[in-house]
Amino acid sequence: MEDKTIRLQLSETKKEKPNSDQLIFGRAFTDHMFVMDYSDPLGWHNASIVPYQPLMIDPSAMIFHYGQSVFEGLKAFRTADGEVQLFRPQKNFERLNLSSDRLCIPPIDEEFALKAIKQLVTVDKEWVPDAEGTSLYIRPFIISTEPYLGVAPSRHYKFIVILSPVGAYYKEGINPVKIAVENKYVRAVKGGTGEAKTGGNYAASLKAQEDVSKEGFAQVLWLDGVEQKYVEEVGSMNVFFKIGGEVVTPKLNGSILAGVTRNSVIELLKHWGIPVSERRISMEELYQAHQDGLLEEAFGSGTAAVISPIGQLTWDGKDMVINGGNTGEISQKVYDTITGIQYGKVEDPFNWIVKVEAKSAVKH
Amino acid sequence: MEDKTIRLQLSETKKEKPNSDQLIFGRAFTDHMFVMDYSDPLGWHNASIVPYQPLMIDPSAMIFHYGQSVFEGLKAFRTADGEVQLFRPQKNFERLNLSSDRLCIPPIDEEFALKAIKQLVTVDKEWVPDAEGTSLYIRPFIISTEPYLGVAPSRHYKFIVILSPVGAYYKEGINPVKIAVENKYVRAVKGGTGEAKTGGNYAASLKAQEDVSKEGFAQVLWLDGVEQKYVEEVGSMNVFFKIGGEVVTPKLNGSILAGVTRNSVIELLKHWGIPVSERRISMEELYQAHQDGLLEEAFGSGTAAVISPIGQLTWDGKDMVINGGNTGEISQKVYDTITGIQYGKVEDPFNWIVKVEAKSAVKH
Repeated sequence: MEDKTIRLQLSETKKEKPNSDQLIFGRAFTDHMFVMDYSDPLGWHNASIVPYQPLMIDPSAMIFHYGQSVFEGLKAFRTADGEVQLFRPQKNFERLNLSSDRLCIPPIDEEFALKAIKQLVTVDKEWVPDAEGTSLYIRPFIISTEPYLGVAPSRHYKFIVILSPVGAYYKEGINPVKIAVENKYVRAVKGGTGEAKTGGNYAASLKAQEDVSKEGFAQVLWLDGVEQKYVEEVGSMNVFFKIGGEVVTPKLNGSILAGVTRNSVIELLKHWGIPVSERRISMEELYQAHQDGLLEEAFGSGTAAVISPIGQLTWDGKDMVINGGNTGEISQKVYDTITGIQYGKVEDPFNWIVKVEAKSAVKH
Repeated sequence: MEDKTIRLQLSETKKEKPNSDQLIFGRAFTDHMFVMDYSDPLGWHNASIVPYQPLMIDPSAMIFHYGQSVFEGLKAFRTADGEVQLFRPQKNFERLNLSSDRLCIPPIDEEFALKAIKQLVTVDKEWVPDAEGTSLYIRPFIISTEPYLGVAPSRHYKFIVILSPVGAYYKEGINPVKIAVENKYVRAVKGGTGEAKTGGNYAASLKAQEDVSKEGFAQVLWLDGVEQKYVEEVGSMNVFFKIGGEVVTPKLNGSILAGVTRNSVIELLKHWGIPVSERRISMEELYQAHQDGLLEEAFGSGTAAVISPIGQLTWDGKDMVINGGNTGEISQKVYDTITGIQYGKVEDPFNWIVKVEAKSAVKH
């Protein structure tokens, strides 16, 4: 039987909190973190909330050599009445376990993990910012820590959750970006790790991003690794297009990450009765639709931005300006609704919200 | 100007050395390690040999999330007269920088890195075992350490070298293994990170290896990620076949690692006048050659095993026994020659050997 108590060791000092208008994604961290160990045959044990602190890890630990790791990203939002709530956290832990399976990492108890992040966020609840568009980013991750250089699944792991207060993604309203279609580098391929949220996929993406940044593009649009013809993702987001009144997004094929926001967008569109389908989409089809005046909107979806409208897509030197470079109607509506649900301003017909149950007594 | 002095802090205690007949690859580490830091704009600095110790790294460091890392593997050998020598170490640092370029990691000074490992091996020279077939494994690696959750190249790194005494790969003579051709999972694809020695490639390989181990296979043979028709690597080694008198190995195509042993095998075969070519090899061709009695030998090449003969290849349920399941003549000759050069028993016409210049005063 695994021990399911969470030991609590509070920090003796408290860090100064950054101003909510100076928050930069992923730079500042709260006073505490959650840590749990795995070893063979003990299983997951020693769940603790401890002061945020450096990890002491042997230089031969597998994470430093063979990249066996998985992670998740979600947010806690402060509502107008001071409550703190999460958006579909169960989906994140469900996906964490799917990622872990691909990476030969033992599964965690999803319910217990949810309890752990609720408790951690409660301990650091003063860190959940309340300015418009701000939130507390939650980063659960698992790393392989066995001190062994053999190429084999590790027998020791750490499951850690850290928290970072983040500013509004859009300081001056939702803003379309220019995207370059990537023809040289590939993010993932069928049979690879593309549908797992693991470090290697992100490491593989850095070079392409660096190259297109120099040319003034915000992100790359990734094509499939087999034929380099079909759309997969945009940057580290899923991607949607509105073509002749229908919203389409690439079908999950093994090399595409099953985004929680992606799923939420699809459910919302269905709820509204807007035609939406998941299928294979070629660049040729997008280009033809654009030529025919049928490529009406394009946007990325992800936890950080929620919705990131694409104002221009550049493919083999051909610029496709979409919706006059402006945010489309559906992009805006989906953005407003999802963020509205997240901050408790809009009704939540899907039961997506999970309360942290920590009514803040702190004055803002 | 980067500071190129190496600070030396010797360990106050010395660990007990494992017996040379009980050495397990990558489990025991020596008394010291080399560490060097990188930060923007300082560059690489603070080169030190320090006692082997855990790393203190912030939990938000990029290595734990986005897998930005590279590594190398080489060995130090003790000759009959007690000298310690390296095998083609320049190739490893050349490749490390190529890997780093793909992963957006700043390059290191290859000459300085060689100086550093020579000095480190000299400090721990008593750890270089002298029993038949044993050696000191050298693992240089670079990890991204900036405490930041944004997906972007890190601005802080650590270059570390650790040492591990390793036993003979073959305890009872070179030994052919059974290999399964992998049809489901893919290690790498054109446009991906396959030609870089980075953690993600190894993380991606674990699941396939785990699956075939259960069926009694030693390793998988990886096919290309595009068509899953063409041979790429075997386990974490390069692969060679002797077909009708000619030795062939897959051509470096961007998704195959440019192995130092691979290159040494090719140079040796050319030196001997044995026909060798680098080209695309399909499974269909191998199967046909086997049917025609022309698939004479097959072997993997890598730092750990040097040569690993393949006695059986299983593809889609079809077993191909190669050379009656025995080690082939060329496999054996290449193995004997490379290991002979490494241990100073055979003449080195290629200048592959680099002396550590630490004539051991230690009695064995």
